[in-house]
Amino acid sequence: MLLPALVDAASGNPDWRVFLASATASLFIGIALILTNRSGSSEINVRQAFLLTTLSWVVTAAFGALPFMFSDLGLTYTDAFFESMSGVTTTGSTVIVGLDNAPPGILLWRSLLQWMGGIGIIVMAVAVLPMLQVGGMQLFRMESSDTSEKILPRAAQFAGAIGFLYLGLTLACATALWIAGMSPFQGLAHAMTTIATGGFSTSDQSIGHFDSAAIDYIIILFMIVGSLPFVLYLQALRGQHRPLLQDSQVRWFMVIAFGSVIGMALWRWHGGDETFADAFRYTSFNVVSIMTGTGYSTADYNQWGGIAIPAFFFLMFVGGCAGSTSCGVKIFRLQVLYAAINVQMHRLLQPHGVFVPRYNRKPIPDPVISSVMSFFFLFAVCYAGLALGLGALGLDFITATSGAGTVIANVGPALGDVIGPSGTFADLPASAKWLLSFGMLLGRLELFTVLVLFSPGFWRG
Amino acid sequence: MLLPALVDAASGNPDWRVFLASATASLFIGIALILTNRSGSSEINVRQAFLLTTLSWVVTAAFGALPFMFSDLGLTYTDAFFESMSGVTTTGSTVIVGLDNAPPGILLWRSLLQWMGGIGIIVMAVAVLPMLQVGGMQLFRMESSDTSEKILPRAAQFAGAIGFLYLGLTLACATALWIAGMSPFQGLAHAMTTIATGGFSTSDQSIGHFDSAAIDYIIILFMIVGSLPFVLYLQALRGQHRPLLQDSQVRWFMVIAFGSVIGMALWRWHGGDETFADAFRYTSFNVVSIMTGTGYSTADYNQWGGIAIPAFFFLMFVGGCAGSTSCGVKIFRLQVLYAAINVQMHRLLQPHGVFVPRYNRKPIPDPVISSVMSFFFLFAVCYAGLALGLGALGLDFITATSGAGTVIANVGPALGDVIGPSGTFADLPASAKWLLSFGMLLGRLELFTVLVLFSPGFWRG
Repeated sequence: MLLPALVDAASGNPDWRVFLASATASLFIGIALILTNRSGSSEINVRQAFLLTTLSWVVTAAFGALPFMFSDLGLTYTDAFFESMSGVTTTGSTVIVGLDNAPPGILLWRSLLQWMGGIGIIVMAVAVLPMLQVGGMQLFRMESSDTSEKILPRAAQFAGAIGFLYLGLTLACATALWIAGMSPFQGLAHAMTTIATGGFSTSDQSIGHFDSAAIDYIIILFMIVGSLPFVLYLQALRGQHRPLLQDSQVRWFMVIAFGSVIGMALWRWHGGDETFADAFRYTSFNVVSIMTGTGYSTADYNQWGGIAIPAFFFLMFVGGCAGSTSCGVKIFRLQVLYAAINVQMHRLLQPHGVFVPRYNRKPIPDPVISSVMSFFFLFAVCYAGLALGLGALGLDFITATSGAGTVIANVGPALGDVIGPSGTFADLPASAKWLLSFGMLLGRLELFTVLVLFSPGFWRG
Repeated sequence: MLLPALVDAASGNPDWRVFLASATASLFIGIALILTNRSGSSEINVRQAFLLTTLSWVVTAAFGALPFMFSDLGLTYTDAFFESMSGVTTTGSTVIVGLDNAPPGILLWRSLLQWMGGIGIIVMAVAVLPMLQVGGMQLFRMESSDTSEKILPRAAQFAGAIGFLYLGLTLACATALWIAGMSPFQGLAHAMTTIATGGFSTSDQSIGHFDSAAIDYIIILFMIVGSLPFVLYLQALRGQHRPLLQDSQVRWFMVIAFGSVIGMALWRWHGGDETFADAFRYTSFNVVSIMTGTGYSTADYNQWGGIAIPAFFFLMFVGGCAGSTSCGVKIFRLQVLYAAINVQMHRLLQPHGVFVPRYNRKPIPDPVISSVMSFFFLFAVCYAGLALGLGALGLDFITATSGAGTVIANVGPALGDVIGPSGTFADLPASAKWLLSFGMLLGRLELFTVLVLFSPGFWRG
């Protein structure tokens, strides 16, 4: 909060007091909690790890909301919390109208929340979730301990290395955006939310505001960079390029992304009066943005008609790779599910044959398969629950079904006129905003991490 | 086809010639195929069983379409095939407008198609699919061979017993409907499509035409009867009531159905100016009709607003019990998936504990779990593919997404103004009708049975 305070002070905006006050309040409560809860033990057990993971996101969102509430924007705490949770979960849904004239401190704070949420989830996905065996993430624990040379074994050391890489990529993206025509501030603000696949922008029209092909393609590149496994970048930096180039998750991601882009671009080109270059530019930007869960937009694809709306609806759920900043079902789960179905098909024809599902050329252990499959079913159930809840709160069909999808997959915009790419979440009832915030948390922490806290067994004994 | 011919001849309708001609053509082609394909062998292998299962539905639909095409209705073959496939798969979507004035032969033929489709799928679900190990149906094979006393072991003998039971239930339903005020013909026509959870009616307004609480509740009862496992009725008839009363699939079905009805009835009562009795009557009829995949309607629930539309959307997918005439994901799969998630949650908290998922108090073997989970993922993928295809053919979002759902779950009406409970499928483009017909076949034969024919391995060797 001190960074936005400095920026606001430098630009002569009185909001610097808001950030300083919020920082002071957060610091005071933080120190009070440390002092009252000190104990000698530094070991944590499995239950505490689940609780700590969930609480760190909730508490960050709760305190991150303070500047939004106290600033000139005049948001209620509900709106402020929604915006803050949308930030730390890298969702990118917004309730703020008038971003183009908002003070720089607020814009930086939104970008910072997403940037911190992005690095937080990478470290969590690599260091914590595999240990907790959430939703098949143990696949990545076993992978790294399989290799004789362990990849930066300790979480702290790993977090440091990944932090430098993350910072470097952000600066590279900011520089490129600056050269392409953004102001340095806009470049940095967008770089932070691009690499985090977050999607907060400094304009109500999102990236469409800049109307520049160069900016579009730079952002497409860095949205993809943000959606690949960061561990593989570390390996590539240390000279091992093969894991990155031969990783099957990366290849599947590329095939799905480029397949969707080419298909939809051809369809747009065939049906409209655009040049192919324009059709490709707008399609690739918006498809990559929605699939990776970034949530920028350069066009109102609600108006594209035909296959576009169902295509964007289902692309929302795909997501990126495990160990990246993106969310959704994730590519590796689709691979595991595909491998399992493939084995099923073979078993149907040869009931006594032995078939083993594989991931990255290695057999997938049975517990990982059932973990991934349980995740998929739970994802469907949570999605249905959210959509039903939003319907009960009075939202129309497309708003409820796409709104539930956009929060559980941490995308940002949904479909339809209300909360589609050209709308905002501002007009929804407060109860819907709380439900949507809960959906963002669920999706970002891979469902199980949050839901396990609601199981009776968690609090027993 | 001879039955509708007799009915039309008796009522002086010239359409009896259409049925006689269609019957002759079908008989001629059938005999020609028998004569040209005779071989000494009567054993079939697994591949042939898959091919035979799928083909029996496709061929029945193809020949069942003839009377629709040649009759005075003036349907194209596309429309006739759609109607016929909607019949044999017990879906209930219709392209015919003006049912109230349609000749009795056509109405009877529609009911007969669903009635035959219903008994066909019960025999298939009990005798063929468990052997083929499709989508976790092997759970029921093992159950029946587990008990020392084998339940009517041979398929032929079983088909006979179930056929008598099916006929008896149909006559009981027809009699009840007749007493409640339908004509004998209407009673029989609706009884056949109720017990088959099919949903074809003799009126454009479906059961709403009769506007009778007694008729509504009789049909609700027999829709539920059609959605429970028929094997358990046979056991009950032989004096063993416990399997029916204590079956966990039956209990889950009742809990989901009554829970949804009570919840939605309270919501309707609270929000509107209906009496609770009316709210309960309309809610229970339409909820049970959609959940069991019957597809009758007594109200345009599109106009109910709020939670109703998403609720009907998700209820479409639930379906009834395995071994019944209803379709959808089915209750036992939800139970297996729930058990698996429950075990996952326990494992998260106690990584070294041993937890076993159970169904009907017995441990679920691992292959069944992965079979069920693969089915669920494949269901989601097929659903998304159908919705995308319908979008590409120009259907709007709610029509495409709910149309895909209503065919894959064999429900009947979808949502929205075009193909919702007060619309018909008549105005859709021909390509969409073929895609929807394929979706009905996929859903009715539990996906794998059809899709395995498209795997390269099927045709090899």
